[in-house]
Amino acid sequence: MTPGPVPEGSEITVVEVGPRDGFQIEKGFIPTDAKISVVNALLASGLRHVQVTSFVSPRAVPQLSDAAEVMAGIDRPEGARFSALVPNARGAERAVAAGVDDIHLFCSASETHNAKNVNKRIEDTLRGFREVVEIARAHGRHVSGGIATAFGCPFEGDVPPAQLVKMAKIYRDELGLSSIGLGDTTGMATPLTVRAALKALREAVPDMTVGLHFHNTRGVGLACVMVGLAEGITRYDASVGGLGGCPFAAGATGNICTEDLVYLLQESGYETGVDLDRLIDAAKLTERVIGRELPGQVMKSGHRLTLHSPDAVATAAG
Amino acid sequence: MTPGPVPEGSEITVVEVGPRDGFQIEKGFIPTDAKISVVNALLASGLRHVQVTSFVSPRAVPQLSDAAEVMAGIDRPEGARFSALVPNARGAERAVAAGVDDIHLFCSASETHNAKNVNKRIEDTLRGFREVVEIARAHGRHVSGGIATAFGCPFEGDVPPAQLVKMAKIYRDELGLSSIGLGDTTGMATPLTVRAALKALREAVPDMTVGLHFHNTRGVGLACVMVGLAEGITRYDASVGGLGGCPFAAGATGNICTEDLVYLLQESGYETGVDLDRLIDAAKLTERVIGRELPGQVMKSGHRLTLHSPDAVATAAG
Repeated sequence: MTPGPVPEGSEITVVEVGPRDGFQIEKGFIPTDAKISVVNALLASGLRHVQVTSFVSPRAVPQLSDAAEVMAGIDRPEGARFSALVPNARGAERAVAAGVDDIHLFCSASETHNAKNVNKRIEDTLRGFREVVEIARAHGRHVSGGIATAFGCPFEGDVPPAQLVKMAKIYRDELGLSSIGLGDTTGMATPLTVRAALKALREAVPDMTVGLHFHNTRGVGLACVMVGLAEGITRYDASVGGLGGCPFAAGATGNICTEDLVYLLQESGYETGVDLDRLIDAAKLTERVIGRELPGQVMKSGHRLTLHSPDAVATAAG
Repeated sequence: MTPGPVPEGSEITVVEVGPRDGFQIEKGFIPTDAKISVVNALLASGLRHVQVTSFVSPRAVPQLSDAAEVMAGIDRPEGARFSALVPNARGAERAVAAGVDDIHLFCSASETHNAKNVNKRIEDTLRGFREVVEIARAHGRHVSGGIATAFGCPFEGDVPPAQLVKMAKIYRDELGLSSIGLGDTTGMATPLTVRAALKALREAVPDMTVGLHFHNTRGVGLACVMVGLAEGITRYDASVGGLGGCPFAAGATGNICTEDLVYLLQESGYETGVDLDRLIDAAKLTERVIGRELPGQVMKSGHRLTLHSPDAVATAAG
């Protein structure tokens, strides 16, 4: 973790997580071919980091039961890295066989959320990852450690930064990982909580890299990205079109939207390697695949310099 | 304009502009009583700055033709200040008679947008405000100078910061104003354009105060507020529920949402004087008044510390 703001001109890694975090919350099963077409459209925009799926129990998350088929069907452009969520050794073996590059572990920062999610205590969950890490290492795959509900738990409330430090240290010292991801699972991150978390981690585990995963449940997802950028973070998850949702709030949006994030980064002077117009195409394809309107704004409005004829429209003051 | 970030703990002025910027773009005429009930609900939340209406030609903006009736019907809690857009001497007389505290002038930063809006050149528009200022001063009313399309014009594209400086100097040196508002009329503001505009104004007219008015057309409205806060700006316009829209993009949102802004500010350590729960009530009332869903997120999700029972819901990883 480098202290201080990310300098203008830097490259920012945008990790597309819609195929995993978005599709898993859809009511119906998205056909495998449609999932593949969305991932390929995302890759065609220049995105090179895609969280494609989860290798979890097909009974727990039937929406992603075609994980291996999706992995087998997608393009592999140069530089592409595919990640997947993996909960256990069985999942690790499936993920390795399917060609996953980055294995992402996940454990909630609150006992209640973690128990609800995987029916285990946090420390048991983390230490249970040892076999996953061994399998991944044996096959030369990268592993990162996810911390869900990192900025607040919908059952317990605030998560103390010390809890994040404790988990990061287990990931580093007991599992040998060098990168973690902080997941704002239900959109509770705020400028104050993000700053406090990053400060604590920078002091305790300065050698680890940190990625941020925000949801826009309360409208402040991209504002939290601005905080991350001011604090030196160069890796952000987002989902195409803002695909996804929140089990706690009907009508609330899910992950921050990839096009809006890419637009924000480009218009802040950062490099993303993404063609925004092609990314908008991918978002429109995703809308057709899921059959409903997505919350993304740039996909509706286009680039700011898409100009209009003064004869075509009425104006409004202010 | 004070250089440097606004210190934590500072008071931020949130100016509610929904009754003006939002209602004016609605297809149908919102009944006067309904407008009054929305303004009163906003005041009940603790908001003390409301842009209630415009004293423009009722033919040009029929949606706001009841400006005087609305002003006459709303509550006047202690400390409340009501502003209105005023284009000319006739409007100034009506606004003064109606009890408007803050008269807000407006002129676009691009010739094409301004011509389309008021059919005049920019310098003629600004100098034409002299009589408005005299009327306002004679009655002890405050006047501020608005610059619309300040961060980009949908017809002309980028607006050079020098143009904002030129207009600010006319407002200051020829009309005697000390405060201006930069309006992001069609949601073209970005971190780079906001920073450039504020830097130029801070250097050229450091004695003027600047308010910011962002639209969320491309999803980055609150990210631009973060830039404003980092640059020392303490005054922001927003509209309840995100009421409003954009004539250039079907489905795009309008102004940044007041509840989401207040939530962001409170969760960044700033004082707003607003009760978020009562503000959400005002947003829900506004939804009922206009008869469609508003884009605000906090009104759907509630405060981040509204906790849930783990038995009530399924969870999702990440």
